[in-house]
Amino acid sequence: MGRVITLTTDFGFQDSYVGVMKGVILSIAASVTLVDGTHDIPPQDIRSGSFHLACLWPYFPRDTIHIVVVDPGVGTARKAVAVQTPRGIFVGPDNGVLAPALCAQGALDEHTGRVLDALAVSLTNEQFHLPAVSNTFHGRDIFAPAAAHLSNGVPLRDLGPPVQRLELGSAPALVANSGMLLGSVQHVDRFGNLITNVPASRVPARAVIRVGNVVIAGLSSSYQQSDIVALIGSSGYLEIGVRNGDAASVLGITRDASVTLQADA
Amino acid sequence: MGRVITLTTDFGFQDSYVGVMKGVILSIAASVTLVDGTHDIPPQDIRSGSFHLACLWPYFPRDTIHIVVVDPGVGTARKAVAVQTPRGIFVGPDNGVLAPALCAQGALDEHTGRVLDALAVSLTNEQFHLPAVSNTFHGRDIFAPAAAHLSNGVPLRDLGPPVQRLELGSAPALVANSGMLLGSVQHVDRFGNLITNVPASRVPARAVIRVGNVVIAGLSSSYQQSDIVALIGSSGYLEIGVRNGDAASVLGITRDASVTLQADA
Amino acid sequence: MGRVITLTTDFGFQDSYVGVMKGVILSIAASVTLVDGTHDIPPQDIRSGSFHLACLWPYFPRDTIHIVVVDPGVGTARKAVAVQTPRGIFVGPDNGVLAPALCAQGALDEHTGRVLDALAVSLTNEQFHLPAVSNTFHGRDIFAPAAAHLSNGVPLRDLGPPVQRLELGSAPALVANSGMLLGSVQHVDRFGNLITNVPASRVPARAVIRVGNVVIAGLSSSYQQSDIVALIGSSGYLEIGVRNGDAASVLGITRDASVTLQADA
Repeated sequence: MGRVITLTTDFGFQDSYVGVMKGVILSIAASVTLVDGTHDIPPQDIRSGSFHLACLWPYFPRDTIHIVVVDPGVGTARKAVAVQTPRGIFVGPDNGVLAPALCAQGALDEHTGRVLDALAVSLTNEQFHLPAVSNTFHGRDIFAPAAAHLSNGVPLRDLGPPVQRLELGSAPALVANSGMLLGSVQHVDRFGNLITNVPASRVPARAVIRVGNVVIAGLSSSYQQSDIVALIGSSGYLEIGVRNGDAASVLGITRDASVTLQADA
Repeated sequence: MGRVITLTTDFGFQDSYVGVMKGVILSIAASVTLVDGTHDIPPQDIRSGSFHLACLWPYFPRDTIHIVVVDPGVGTARKAVAVQTPRGIFVGPDNGVLAPALCAQGALDEHTGRVLDALAVSLTNEQFHLPAVSNTFHGRDIFAPAAAHLSNGVPLRDLGPPVQRLELGSAPALVANSGMLLGSVQHVDRFGNLITNVPASRVPARAVIRVGNVVIAGLSSSYQQSDIVALIGSSGYLEIGVRNGDAASVLGITRDASVTLQADA
Repeated sequence: MGRVITLTTDFGFQDSYVGVMKGVILSIAASVTLVDGTHDIPPQDIRSGSFHLACLWPYFPRDTIHIVVVDPGVGTARKAVAVQTPRGIFVGPDNGVLAPALCAQGALDEHTGRVLDALAVSLTNEQFHLPAVSNTFHGRDIFAPAAAHLSNGVPLRDLGPPVQRLELGSAPALVANSGMLLGSVQHVDRFGNLITNVPASRVPARAVIRVGNVVIAGLSSSYQQSDIVALIGSSGYLEIGVRNGDAASVLGITRDASVTLQADA
């Protein structure tokens, strides 16, 4: 049985780009199991790509290879990288899209971008590229073959020279200020649930939550508990939802909206 | 070669929920073959989920495990169940989403919800859940691991206590009335074809069909036969289509619209 | 490890038609690897289907079986065919959807539709159909079982009688006229990039390109090089893009728009 390779991109489902990447992989490594993360990331939205990767990796086998391609700088000087950690190998452009997943594993310093408990390489060895590398589709020409060769057991070091620092990207910070926590909505999911960047560990036991014009007192344990609920969502972040409805459209809130938390007095 | 597991949900393709479920399954059962039914079921639309499952199962191998997650009641008292029949194992919330597929197999009494020729259990054995079960994502925490363990050969009885009755859901009935049959549109497909709830066996040989403002005399054998056609569609139901066009938008008809049939005098 | 079967259709992702085809295939050939090309081809858009197949096949293993179902004539007299070339087996309706991929391989004469270096058969042997063949879903009843039996090693000749000519479809031609090359936009991808029908080999070294109201002098090497770029895209065609943007919407251009090229004086 082959290893698992996941693919997460902004290529959409209406084109054949994802299918082409799978063809490249299967031509090199016939027995892998391919799994789609999502391909519906808004075009060039690096933060959305990094959010989905951060949701995915904790649930996959430890030798999984995760490819993420959200790559507005394809064909420019940005590096193509692969990073091996105890939880898998992460392959993609060095533009911050891999950073939150690596920081969460302690593989990357979130302040300096320094590679910590991991091996990172720049994918420059042309022996592991497709014969002709385009300037517009490194998913096909560099990332897919790298992942396939890695799944075949090629050592990471063979793919290119080590890299000591990676780009961190630009996720909005969580700010604590005189008893108040200021965060933001980092993702609106299909159901219209507002997934904030506030992890469960930072949510006070009896929290008062403000988002848009709404004040929510206390956490619920399910979406059914009241009309507007705040709860710890399945990804481990504070989430705002509407019972049997779409919180984003009911409340008129989109990504990056501010969220504030205070402990109830 | 592993068993087939299908996944049908209302999670959409733009999030990583489906990918996460697959990661959970592959972490427990590395050699399964995963197949997507659809994930584009309208949020919380149990009837649509049950329609798609009913379309899918007849075409899969007899030891397939079908997971369906359309689960507005996640985190409440609704049961999580798995049901083994001669045609596979069906895993999902006990909210009616599995019922039409089970009734069609004679595994469930369509009037009483009594389990007939099948074994149904409530998935309460925590040994086969993920270590931490959320209140919002049983697809990941309960249904995916249950299916994976079942594919590994764990007996259904080990997953929880037997259940004698299941929820039936609320599909509109087909009514016969003084020579007339009253049904409805149960699904509009991507092409705009109107798939009714009238099975082929109930369609008179020379039928006159009324839907919206349109009267159609007789059945066609293909979509090309006239401008507006009524035919027995691929799922075995009476279907209304428009040649090279979209019947739903041309005729201004949506799901649940009434359809009446009469034998031609 | 089984062979790869790709599926490219206009069935969309919101229905279970694709899942049903996969169930049929796995019931006959349990160990194949299934890969989705795309299923988001506009309904009945044969040219779009043929474009995506032409993008896919060069990147797959040589024994891959490619199914394409864009089939407005399903249930009429149009043939169902399978064509074996040195680069795989191509299965679909004989309506032109397979033609560009076959012509590019030299398997089909682009002027006469004559089958050249390939074996083509009409899929009439009912032994390799599903027991009941509908008039509306040959993807399930004829194409999927054909591909599955072929992947099991059934010889192509067993599936039906040889065919000498295939339909060519109606792709707009590329016209050379007094030093000018007239082409058109054959596909707008998810990013809004305008993929023309002008192959790299026909693009002058120092080209002046006109599309809509825009004149572009010279080719770029990446999407980042200027605001509006013309470049050789990843599929090997001249492509027009907008840096970090959507060329189709910025320039107000859709498929079939004219593109002219001239060598710079």
